[in-house]
Amino acid sequence: MKIAFIGLGNMGGPMALNLKKAGHTLSAFDLSAEACKKFAAEGLPIAASAAASVADAEVVISMLPASAHVEGLYLGSDGLLGKIAPGTLVIDSSTIAAATSRKVAEAGAARGIAVIDAPVSGGTGGAIAGTLTFMVGGSEADLERARPVLEKMGANIFHAGAAGAGQTAKICNNMLLGVLMIGTSEAIALGIANGLDPKVLSEIMRRSSGGNWALEKYNPLPGVQEASPASKGYAGGFGTDLMLKDLGLAQENAAAVRASTPLGGLARNLYAAHSLAGHGGLDFSSVIKMLQKKA
Amino acid sequence: MKIAFIGLGNMGGPMALNLKKAGHTLSAFDLSAEACKKFAAEGLPIAASAAASVADAEVVISMLPASAHVEGLYLGSDGLLGKIAPGTLVIDSSTIAAATSRKVAEAGAARGIAVIDAPVSGGTGGAIAGTLTFMVGGSEADLERARPVLEKMGANIFHAGAAGAGQTAKICNNMLLGVLMIGTSEAIALGIANGLDPKVLSEIMRRSSGGNWALEKYNPLPGVQEASPASKGYAGGFGTDLMLKDLGLAQENAAAVRASTPLGGLARNLYAAHSLAGHGGLDFSSVIKMLQKKA
Amino acid sequence: MKIAFIGLGNMGGPMALNLKKAGHTLSAFDLSAEACKKFAAEGLPIAASAAASVADAEVVISMLPASAHVEGLYLGSDGLLGKIAPGTLVIDSSTIAAATSRKVAEAGAARGIAVIDAPVSGGTGGAIAGTLTFMVGGSEADLERARPVLEKMGANIFHAGAAGAGQTAKICNNMLLGVLMIGTSEAIALGIANGLDPKVLSEIMRRSSGGNWALEKYNPLPGVQEASPASKGYAGGFGTDLMLKDLGLAQENAAAVRASTPLGGLARNLYAAHSLAGHGGLDFSSVIKMLQKKA
Amino acid sequence: MKIAFIGLGNMGGPMALNLKKAGHTLSAFDLSAEACKKFAAEGLPIAASAAASVADAEVVISMLPASAHVEGLYLGSDGLLGKIAPGTLVIDSSTIAAATSRKVAEAGAARGIAVIDAPVSGGTGGAIAGTLTFMVGGSEADLERARPVLEKMGANIFHAGAAGAGQTAKICNNMLLGVLMIGTSEAIALGIANGLDPKVLSEIMRRSSGGNWALEKYNPLPGVQEASPASKGYAGGFGTDLMLKDLGLAQENAAAVRASTPLGGLARNLYAAHSLAGHGGLDFSSVIKMLQKKA
Repeated sequence: MKIAFIGLGNMGGPMALNLKKAGHTLSAFDLSAEACKKFAAEGLPIAASAAASVADAEVVISMLPASAHVEGLYLGSDGLLGKIAPGTLVIDSSTIAAATSRKVAEAGAARGIAVIDAPVSGGTGGAIAGTLTFMVGGSEADLERARPVLEKMGANIFHAGAAGAGQTAKICNNMLLGVLMIGTSEAIALGIANGLDPKVLSEIMRRSSGGNWALEKYNPLPGVQEASPASKGYAGGFGTDLMLKDLGLAQENAAAVRASTPLGGLARNLYAAHSLAGHGGLDFSSVIKMLQKKA
Repeated sequence: MKIAFIGLGNMGGPMALNLKKAGHTLSAFDLSAEACKKFAAEGLPIAASAAASVADAEVVISMLPASAHVEGLYLGSDGLLGKIAPGTLVIDSSTIAAATSRKVAEAGAARGIAVIDAPVSGGTGGAIAGTLTFMVGGSEADLERARPVLEKMGANIFHAGAAGAGQTAKICNNMLLGVLMIGTSEAIALGIANGLDPKVLSEIMRRSSGGNWALEKYNPLPGVQEASPASKGYAGGFGTDLMLKDLGLAQENAAAVRASTPLGGLARNLYAAHSLAGHGGLDFSSVIKMLQKKA
Repeated sequence: MKIAFIGLGNMGGPMALNLKKAGHTLSAFDLSAEACKKFAAEGLPIAASAAASVADAEVVISMLPASAHVEGLYLGSDGLLGKIAPGTLVIDSSTIAAATSRKVAEAGAARGIAVIDAPVSGGTGGAIAGTLTFMVGGSEADLERARPVLEKMGANIFHAGAAGAGQTAKICNNMLLGVLMIGTSEAIALGIANGLDPKVLSEIMRRSSGGNWALEKYNPLPGVQEASPASKGYAGGFGTDLMLKDLGLAQENAAAVRASTPLGGLARNLYAAHSLAGHGGLDFSSVIKMLQKKA
Repeated sequence: MKIAFIGLGNMGGPMALNLKKAGHTLSAFDLSAEACKKFAAEGLPIAASAAASVADAEVVISMLPASAHVEGLYLGSDGLLGKIAPGTLVIDSSTIAAATSRKVAEAGAARGIAVIDAPVSGGTGGAIAGTLTFMVGGSEADLERARPVLEKMGANIFHAGAAGAGQTAKICNNMLLGVLMIGTSEAIALGIANGLDPKVLSEIMRRSSGGNWALEKYNPLPGVQEASPASKGYAGGFGTDLMLKDLGLAQENAAAVRASTPLGGLARNLYAAHSLAGHGGLDFSSVIKMLQKKA
């Protein structure tokens, strides 16, 4: 299958490579010449422009930083939707505002182009390993068309609902994750302040009603789990600033639909303080530092 | 074994009955004549007073509402520790301040009486079924002495650490649980406000990094899980006012050790508002009502 | 002076009338025929369209609900900026995103049209009485051009800084106000729960380090201040849903500039819960209900 | 008048000196020999013990760190209330739990000793200058007896209500102050992040509905007000750890009466994080650092 892939960052690049390894014909592009050069060196065919990449493409995939980039790419008088052939399937894997996803999907539909939103979780590790989780918004039929392609890049594919629902599912999940991580950090820090062994306490809570993904797979305290980012100096993993972006999207969305999310809102503002303190580049589980006595 | 059991409330009564069923010789007491009458009718031998109940007892178990009751029972010039024979094992299953547990344990040790704190989770259902979880603070040796008795009332026994550690582990766990439940409720309510199907969204998050005990076993939205309190009008389960009490203990403890628990503190104040709105008697997962448009 | 006035809502209508009373030649417009009819009856000359209203205008004033309306009015190929004569002064008094104000100001500058943002506080009462507070973003010179016009509608005019700064100053102030009101409500409710007389406590705090505008002019408890919205069934004043909108703008802005505003964010989510409970139309000081035992 | 003064810390010492300067006969005591020595050097007559200090005293004043110290001093079989002559007036100026104040007042009443709680605000500066604010709990008559003495140490005397009400008024006020300071800091930090001049923004908010004591007298940003602790490296003033103590008392009290104080609770946990980061000894307005990009 002929696939155009636009956006070769830390996530997009490895995703595109996995599609190439799976035997697809790729035509990739990024506005950064450096990114193009880097992935060209890894064997990815680079097009001269986004417009050039989509010529003859059966599937177009994009992986961009924010709503403004996705709008800029697809919409407007010179937008890519005017250059993609009707009948093409567009998969936007960027994490952006649900409203933007819906806008692009509607503009696509008006031109006979199916657009689904398929944001991912799983981090750069999952992108490289091809084990990402996709949360998809769009019709069942379009998801089935996309499935063979998504399966080359990910291990889990969830159908969240109509256009934009993939975005909403992702921000709901990540808002909850942001809360779990701080809540877990608070419990562990409170235990330590009372003299408890954090390994023992973590294990008790993991097997009790406090059990959650952070305790299971991603303990925020160094030394509790060997493979966690915490045990590797909070390197790798999912950066504080990326979590901050997702929690910002969640608060923007909550404002738009007048929802009340007190813990999710507080979590955003705590990660923001953690980032201002200079930890934006560390894994988000490093937020536990904010609750511990500074050495 | 001869066991004295003091405190025959909704939790203590069924726990004592389970010990009797297991073949132990019970001598039970409660300050409420009504409670004594009720459990006498179920076959529990009732003593004339707390002091009378502990005569000849090899093990003394207490299950009382708050720190003040436990202090009042055991300490002071007329306290029960002066009437219990040295060598006896005291198991206090009340959920109280860790500092009080340590005070009682020290007073006991001075008289040659081993005291362990063993607060429980699992609710009245677990008390009746004998499937409670015990979080124990005290020496390993004392826990081993208690184990055969605890096993008649519970399914999980965790050793959290020295005296008071059982209390700390419980408030850490329940603080985290209180946070998980509100965080999960916020994510579901935000999804609904965006038009997502709450069952679909719950399932996606349960299998993703938002996964936690609330999504697994205790979904706060009616109709998502048949057996959850939410699907039964928020009856049964773990009442809002009980969660409020535990979160109050956690904040008291955080103040004492100068810990920072922003989400745990906010959770307490949100459950307090939920209780003030008249929902203190409903299961704590009903807190999702606070985030939904009032019909 | 010939003034075009676009947006004749509860705020805009009375503001336009004050300009007419001051002797200016008005040409007003609103997309709602009903609004046009209502203010025509009060003597306001109504134009056939927004475009018609600005013909020959020396000053154009707009008062619209949200960013999208302001963008829709002024920008785009058919936008009003293309129909306003170079040299005209545009005063946008809408409360919108600072980024939108900057965008409109830049588009205006490119056409030789000075645009200042001048959002107001003071509510419908201030609009009618002509005692509004204006927070202005734009050059000093443009503010001086606007001053004689603004003085007909308001009592205080603050220069906050360059384009967009009026919006930022307003959301900073209103975020703080939203926090003051809940903080004051919490303190009073805590005092009452401890048996204190709320009038006595309010007076003590007003004269101590807890002193703030809410205690001074806008006590949230009915009966403490005769003239407060609280003493009039929370009617009039500044509605919960309007406060919610401003706090949403503040969180959107905080996300855009990566600021941390934990109390401001929590305040938004508490007003949102208060609105969901059915109190969106009451004055925002009614948020104290959330902290009081429901009768 | 013969006055016993117990507790010669940074607050108590200067308060006692002011009473001596006013011509009263003092008999002072502190458990710390060092404190006794220091104030003896400043001319304060030191008694051999607390019991010795109260012999013949017409008024007993205490200024101690926490509830436990006050209970330890006055209550119990060896407590000071057993050594003070009936008819004596006891003024406890410690900031402690309202419940403890009530307990001591009741124990005093049983012995014919009037006890009022009279916690202060105004800091060490106010203690030295004799300009403290007293918030008094007790009968009107007892307050009038105390007034001539209090007037030598303070400038404002508020009668908050019956026994314990002084404590409640103080924690309500200080909880509100803790919220005002963080809310003000957030608004200023958000303005700066948007390019506003903090002096201009502070002035606009001070004169608008965001006006509060922090903007008026205690701006948290260095350089805005010459005399503020912020402009002196956050030295002097009211330490973060003292604010933390008061906010902890407020949360303890809220738990006891089942009140909901979401912003007050969050404020406590934010000051706790600020203290853990190493700023416990700085003035509490330094909390703005948590919201600013670390240099």
